[in-house]
Amino acid sequence: MPAAPLRLGLAGLGTVGIGVVRIVQTHADLIAARAGRRVEIVAVSARDRTRNRDADLSGYAWEDDPVRLAGRDDIDVFVEVMGGHDGPAKSATEAAIAAGKDIVTANKALLAHHGQSLAEQAEASGRVIRFEAAVAGGIPVIKTLTEGLAGNAMRRVMGVMNGSCNYILTRMQAAGLSYETVFEEARQLGYLEADPNLDVGGIDAGHKLSLLAAIAFGTRVSFDAVQLEGIGSVSIDDIRHAGDMGYRIKLLGVAQMTGRGLEQRMTPCLVPADHPLGQLEGGTNMVVLEGDSVGQIVLRGPGAGQGPTASAIMADVIDIARGIRLPTFGRPAATLAAPVAAATGTAAPYYLRMTLVDKPGALAKIATCLGEAGISIDRMRQYGHQGAQAPVLIVTHKATSDDIAHAMGRFAATGVLVGSPVALRIEEV
Amino acid sequence: MPAAPLRLGLAGLGTVGIGVVRIVQTHADLIAARAGRRVEIVAVSARDRTRNRDADLSGYAWEDDPVRLAGRDDIDVFVEVMGGHDGPAKSATEAAIAAGKDIVTANKALLAHHGQSLAEQAEASGRVIRFEAAVAGGIPVIKTLTEGLAGNAMRRVMGVMNGSCNYILTRMQAAGLSYETVFEEARQLGYLEADPNLDVGGIDAGHKLSLLAAIAFGTRVSFDAVQLEGIGSVSIDDIRHAGDMGYRIKLLGVAQMTGRGLEQRMTPCLVPADHPLGQLEGGTNMVVLEGDSVGQIVLRGPGAGQGPTASAIMADVIDIARGIRLPTFGRPAATLAAPVAAATGTAAPYYLRMTLVDKPGALAKIATCLGEAGISIDRMRQYGHQGAQAPVLIVTHKATSDDIAHAMGRFAATGVLVGSPVALRIEEV
Repeated sequence: MPAAPLRLGLAGLGTVGIGVVRIVQTHADLIAARAGRRVEIVAVSARDRTRNRDADLSGYAWEDDPVRLAGRDDIDVFVEVMGGHDGPAKSATEAAIAAGKDIVTANKALLAHHGQSLAEQAEASGRVIRFEAAVAGGIPVIKTLTEGLAGNAMRRVMGVMNGSCNYILTRMQAAGLSYETVFEEARQLGYLEADPNLDVGGIDAGHKLSLLAAIAFGTRVSFDAVQLEGIGSVSIDDIRHAGDMGYRIKLLGVAQMTGRGLEQRMTPCLVPADHPLGQLEGGTNMVVLEGDSVGQIVLRGPGAGQGPTASAIMADVIDIARGIRLPTFGRPAATLAAPVAAATGTAAPYYLRMTLVDKPGALAKIATCLGEAGISIDRMRQYGHQGAQAPVLIVTHKATSDDIAHAMGRFAATGVLVGSPVALRIEEV
Repeated sequence: MPAAPLRLGLAGLGTVGIGVVRIVQTHADLIAARAGRRVEIVAVSARDRTRNRDADLSGYAWEDDPVRLAGRDDIDVFVEVMGGHDGPAKSATEAAIAAGKDIVTANKALLAHHGQSLAEQAEASGRVIRFEAAVAGGIPVIKTLTEGLAGNAMRRVMGVMNGSCNYILTRMQAAGLSYETVFEEARQLGYLEADPNLDVGGIDAGHKLSLLAAIAFGTRVSFDAVQLEGIGSVSIDDIRHAGDMGYRIKLLGVAQMTGRGLEQRMTPCLVPADHPLGQLEGGTNMVVLEGDSVGQIVLRGPGAGQGPTASAIMADVIDIARGIRLPTFGRPAATLAAPVAAATGTAAPYYLRMTLVDKPGALAKIATCLGEAGISIDRMRQYGHQGAQAPVLIVTHKATSDDIAHAMGRFAATGVLVGSPVALRIEEV
């Protein structure tokens, strides 16, 4: 007797939801061959039933309310692609767990805020929550980290996980345009969220990083502890100077466990132009996973879009159809440690850019500040004077962010600075 | 009551086997936390018991004969890292299946030659065969393809999967050295197999490609149908000329299903220097997976070595400990189709290099041959004369390998050629 079909309830019929419908309809036989059973959509839900979605939904029951969809007796898996970290997405997901459904979700915000609680609820009922589509779109990074590298103590997880930010930064570099110009361009192209700060403020990418950190280090999701810094402060000058020195500027997420605790940063960083991270252009995503046995694994692929996101959703669905059942974050939620956020970050070289008044001794004063903060200088470059002002670039030897902040505080008191200095970490990859 | 430990029998105590011992010993608690049960080595086997292996094996039973190890009552999983596609590796693996053990193997040759038969034996007994370590070392490509992209109809699978060949080609490029010189260097550094033709002849990489093709296209492993061409014919001139035109030469494996059947090629190809494949240097491996929904996913990492290979072995072991059980090639072996090898490969642009006698009309004769074979020319470059000989480079528009072979056959009859012409496919990535 063939195994019973796996029945899906699909909440959300936007781009991603319709992508899921397309795969289920187009590849029914292929999926059945791989999963050992058929996968069917039974019922769907969305805000507006009348909207033309360019897909045949006539075979599916309709629910106006995702919570009602979640509780239907005739579904096995609740697929949540509505978005939003509170409201319907949360209540429907909780209702689905309570009704004994497995969960597949693309909702990074939901899990970044409520991952621990949802995982505990699911595991208490013997249900699974899968979220491959929530991080880095089509790249199977959750699976790679949770399963493919399960024999490794993870050392560091890094990633460029917001395609819009990477588009903006690489477009600035390629066209020599200002942040403001390219931001406006991206907005008009529809590359940015309705609240663009989710993208350019690093929040969306920070959500993703916090999920990877939980799996990598066996800690509870702690999005609040992610040090967030958006790309709004990155100037075309910085991109040019970094390029001259062999670097690219990326909005880079880094999570690592140190003796001082868990570090999670989502900040603009310099990375070597010849590393895959530096070479990454446009909206593509990249995740770098470093384990004690495997060394460095780099995954690259589309971080968004209908097909890639639906591909990730379907991987989770097919895993469930195949009987693959793991705890949400790779080990039981009850055993995840409450992470101690590292008070001081690991040391790294820093890129400093500032403008000095054109007076004898100005540069010496800056160098003195750095020395007094215990920071030594690797390279320094003073550019041709622009009127009475002299732009200066400094690359430091390794320093902590505290040391850098300390030195920057002292700069202000010297009276030789014009405007604010810029400090960007150089992540060693 | 905690779940019973998963008990391993480890056949092979070379570099990889000792790597597995190290992970099991070092990360016992971490693995137990992730797998939900402990993983233990119970018994081991190798050719020479007395050899110093720099690892504490005193807690493990010893078997001189891997077949005896395979049949022990006190093991659940037979971990085969002996190598060789016949002889002890095959008989011990078959004995292990017959004795009801699951199999984890790093042995690409064994599976390339006997994968179908072994998969059928295992599936008939409800056992699994896992082989993450057999392809691209530490990169979890088997898992990514089988599970992470299971919702996709795969379009093409490509890879640079022999680190020694990639080392040789990138070293030739970087140092301007001849193939022969760098081959000798690699041999002395211990980068090559005892039979170096396994590496430079493309056989080892061809084994890996045939395994990926089976999973991607749901076909029986058909290593014999892989078109194999090693890197021995790649000259430093070709590397330089390709570089001038914005390409790199890689030993590239390509598998794709076309209307004419399954294409499997492991041949030196030109790839764009700015694609991740072109940027790949040294012994690192890269696999490119193209699916109809996801687009292009690129995986990069160490393709060999103790830690990376043991990492892949342990991922398979931990999957088994977690209860993840899939058919060997992602769907039941009995349902895998016997592939029809494509008689004609897909068309692609070609790079042609030849030397012509310095006579009026020589180039015209070559151009005529191409035209008569239905091949049009995209770019042509004639280099400064070397004595009475003129090196010529041609990049064609898309042509099949048959067309190219046809034209090359006609070249010979013109009498204007000095030596043999070179033809390399330009893979469009």
